Amino acid sequence: MELLEILECSPPLTREPLDSEQAAGIARVFKALGDPVRLRILSIVASRAGGEVCVCDITDAFELSQPTISHHLKVLKEVGLLTSERRASWVYYRLVPETLGELSALLTLPASGPVTGPAAAVAVSR
Amino acid sequence: MELLEILECSPPLTREPLDSEQAAGIARVFKALGDPVRLRILSIVASRAGGEVCVCDITDAFELSQPTISHHLKVLKEVGLLTSERRASWVYYRLVPETLGELSALLTLPASGPVTGPAAAVAVSR
Repeated sequence: MELLEILECSPPLTREPLDSEQAAGIARVFKALGDPVRLRILSIVASRAGGEVCVCDITDAFELSQPTISHHLKVLKEVGLLTSERRASWVYYRLVPETLGELSALLTLPASGPVTGPAAAVAVSR
Repeated sequence: MELLEILECSPPLTREPLDSEQAAGIARVFKALGDPVRLRILSIVASRAGGEVCVCDITDAFELSQPTISHHLKVLKEVGLLTSERRASWVYYRLVPETLGELSALLTLPASGPVTGPAAAVAVSR
């Protein structure tokens, strides 16, 4: 199953426990986000008015080698957070909003917040 | 700065690029989520009616050793996703909804979605 499909089919963490397949897929996406450079790259692309960023502009924002930046971009593409398109000599990157939106929904809290308080705690400890 | 503070002070990824300090803090939390077992543990605790789960119930849900589960729980506590409380012989775990909510907000899309389309692409390539 595609990662985006797994995200779409997974309930919010606060609704019910994830199964193994769901957890394995989602963990791949969060692992990709678990790196400061990749998070900054993603935020540069995601926040760009116009929606796409030339790889040259991404490389210019970091004191890192081109292969290192390329590796991070590849990881973000593999988990479906970015897409790319080559035009003339440059590659342009674009956010996949569906993936980001599904991740956000996974972590969302129920409108009323989780059930807490002494009465609930008693019910659990039985 | 505490991780929750960093999360609270960070803009959504789609609004503006993260700075290095924000990215370093947020990456720690996503790295904690980048493991299937930790995601399943978090979903078990987050979805539990009553809001807390005995460590014994968490261990029973996996075919993993107690020390392995303890390690994963420690990682989730260190990044502020879970808290724990010892009562009698057992430790009880509880979600920190603020941390989950801030993470969700970080990944949220703007109401209208990112600006895309040919006109926007032309504006960027100038």
